[in-house]
Amino acid sequence: MNDYSLRPLGHVQSPLTEPSAAPRQGDEGAPDCWLVFDRDVRPALDGLRQGDDIVVVTWLHRADRSVLQVHPRGDAGRPIRGVFATRSQHRPNPLGIHTVTILDIDDLRVHVRGLEAVDGTPIVDIKSALGPSGRR
Amino acid sequence: MNDYSLRPLGHVQSPLTEPSAAPRQGDEGAPDCWLVFDRDVRPALDGLRQGDDIVVVTWLHRADRSVLQVHPRGDAGRPIRGVFATRSQHRPNPLGIHTVTILDIDDLRVHVRGLEAVDGTPIVDIKSALGPSGRR
Repeated sequence: MNDYSLRPLGHVQSPLTEPSAAPRQGDEGAPDCWLVFDRDVRPALDGLRQGDDIVVVTWLHRADRSVLQVHPRGDAGRPIRGVFATRSQHRPNPLGIHTVTILDIDDLRVHVRGLEAVDGTPIVDIKSALGPSGRR
Repeated sequence: MNDYSLRPLGHVQSPLTEPSAAPRQGDEGAPDCWLVFDRDVRPALDGLRQGDDIVVVTWLHRADRSVLQVHPRGDAGRPIRGVFATRSQHRPNPLGIHTVTILDIDDLRVHVRGLEAVDGTPIVDIKSALGPSGRR
């Protein structure tokens, strides 16, 4: 591993299998799905609770890393702009950031609401979401 | 590059040089600082504007990637918990996620408010922040 290599920690298990059918953001009709973690990161899940809001970081494995500019939301009627000013999956480092709510936890599996990533998407990090209600 | 290799796209230029002096979150007194991008990703910056809220993803290069559990906020008085239930920099994939406001843009340099990363921290992604006011 070089200095900047990510290690997949698990993957998304979702009824969404086709990117073309996936909503563009989690609050646009994404289904409930499971985050399934590798056994060796089990200790890192301790302290997560039903009802918590978390930030899930995924590796958008179908993205095109050579793309620097897009029509926002794939709409050719919208002026082209830099990918850093959008949420396009296509970008030099195809990281997805999703804030979701934990519905349930079953050992290595975390059930969440509102994740728009397709089935099989690698998970590379999870963080507590910082809410107005306080710090973790 | 393997499938999961990030490419640094620039770095943070900040008066914060010592991790021990850095605030733990951006809204806890982080100074204004510059995001300095590599020339070849310049097209990806098009469309960013003064006043925009963006999500900056950094590579926390001083983190310990072997850590799976911590005392939250480094406070030994708080019960140990899994890093995925915290915002600790120490975690298997040491990605930092920071929501900041753009103060100014000067070609490859973007001046932002509220970033707690230390000077020299590599930047690996920038996204439009999704706000209640609408979509990008």
